[in-house]
Amino acid sequence: MSIVVVGSIAFDDVQTDKGSVKDALGGSALYFSAAASLFAPVHLVGVVGGDFPMEEIAFLNARGVNTDCLDVVENGKTFRWSGVYETDMNKRRTAVLALNVFERFDPMLDDRCRSARYVFLANIDPELQERVLDQVVSPEFVALDTMECYILQKREALRGVLRRIDLLFINDSEAQILTGLSNVVAAAESLLDLGPRYVVVKKGEHGSLLISRGGIFVVPAYPLRKVIDPTGAGDSYAGGVVGYLAETGAHDEGTLRKAVVCGGIVASFAVEGFSLDRLRDISRNDVERRMEHFRAVTGF
Amino acid sequence: MSIVVVGSIAFDDVQTDKGSVKDALGGSALYFSAAASLFAPVHLVGVVGGDFPMEEIAFLNARGVNTDCLDVVENGKTFRWSGVYETDMNKRRTAVLALNVFERFDPMLDDRCRSARYVFLANIDPELQERVLDQVVSPEFVALDTMECYILQKREALRGVLRRIDLLFINDSEAQILTGLSNVVAAAESLLDLGPRYVVVKKGEHGSLLISRGGIFVVPAYPLRKVIDPTGAGDSYAGGVVGYLAETGAHDEGTLRKAVVCGGIVASFAVEGFSLDRLRDISRNDVERRMEHFRAVTGF
Repeated sequence: MSIVVVGSIAFDDVQTDKGSVKDALGGSALYFSAAASLFAPVHLVGVVGGDFPMEEIAFLNARGVNTDCLDVVENGKTFRWSGVYETDMNKRRTAVLALNVFERFDPMLDDRCRSARYVFLANIDPELQERVLDQVVSPEFVALDTMECYILQKREALRGVLRRIDLLFINDSEAQILTGLSNVVAAAESLLDLGPRYVVVKKGEHGSLLISRGGIFVVPAYPLRKVIDPTGAGDSYAGGVVGYLAETGAHDEGTLRKAVVCGGIVASFAVEGFSLDRLRDISRNDVERRMEHFRAVTGF
Repeated sequence: MSIVVVGSIAFDDVQTDKGSVKDALGGSALYFSAAASLFAPVHLVGVVGGDFPMEEIAFLNARGVNTDCLDVVENGKTFRWSGVYETDMNKRRTAVLALNVFERFDPMLDDRCRSARYVFLANIDPELQERVLDQVVSPEFVALDTMECYILQKREALRGVLRRIDLLFINDSEAQILTGLSNVVAAAESLLDLGPRYVVVKKGEHGSLLISRGGIFVVPAYPLRKVIDPTGAGDSYAGGVVGYLAETGAHDEGTLRKAVVCGGIVASFAVEGFSLDRLRDISRNDVERRMEHFRAVTGF
């Protein structure tokens, strides 16, 4: 089954206590595509400027990412983000955020994109998310990520699109802000009332929670001795989850649990390097091997 | 197999966003004893003042806690601690800390305490920990907890006693302070060089890590919808771990994993009430049932 993703494509300047990169490939849609394409074909919907080096994402095309719906605005500049992480990598400061061509982004899907059965709406404006979802002909499973600024500034639009999705990805602090509940389990459970059948709470290095009417699943993160750059971890995680679901073609509770584990594994690779470096290198087999190791380090 | 524990016995004043208690039973040795006695006989070594209501720990005696080595200083006052938790219960402020009779505490173990095979040295001065350990005739398994002030102020004494133990309990921030390493896995692994065969890193609501030369085990916390008071969670956790080991009489890697899961389950009960309220109520069967539920919410 193929996946359509809409989200940002960016140049990132990133600094962590392990080093820094400039003009690195980034953005939620690129991280997601690099991750999900390990499992299933991906249609990438987004926008870049004339400054974007298409040859640098040739590895994505080779892996089954269709970029026909990647809009190139020749006289515009690509979205740019710059961030600095503290030694405690859970804390970061955004130094620069320039929307550029993203500011007037109005995605138009072609027939191939419209026919995808799995949909991932990355953390962009909920009105844009809904306009993309409107164009998908017969979505079987829709997942959505969001972020604090949309929870605070576009709450009604966000609530509108949440009613139409199957799975919400959200991090722990966002879940607390959206619900006003400090307990993460209680917050996630109350999010089910907004529409999604599944809520996945991402807790970074502390793992994640999967909540549904059927119950709760808790899973730690894959233990890493060294983290280079956490940028894109959440999008890579979502790519692992939705990719796994599209690969299997199922979305029952048991499959969702495995998908969530898979998402954590893919994210664990992503943070071992800057930008897409690690996701570019790995194969589906590498994911499988690390999943087996994860079973070994979590079994009792 | 029986366990000897040395640690504090206290009156606690605690305030959380769920309520408050005054003059409540607390202290590391009491929490540990209440937890560990669900699994095995416990010898409690500690000191209280003449103001301590012995009848309030009669439930511990009934559960197999021997208090013959609980020193009562008739003209002294019991140790007192007072703390205020923020809504984010990972953050707390100590308002009052009065050592009282604890200041001159010099534990003397009788023959029954000396013959215990399992030893838990709760988070007291490492010189005191070592003086107790010296008195145990033939310890089979020694576990130790510590805290930030001893890491900062008594580092050499702490390093001395660490060389003689089997298992170190430490929380994530303490592991980082003791090793200077910001990555928790790397920090825990480097702690093995100080002597212990096993290092357990407690991460509160985020679960824990068990590290040995044989490898790593990661486990999430039991998911709770409501936490009343996190005081004593770490000591209850240690009580569940050491209690489980003493009950089984084994301490191989596989048993340690189950023990660590058991510790998390016991701690999950402890934080559902103030003081020893929940630990007083529950039985070994309640722990078993919640462990089974934990298997269900973590299986994939």
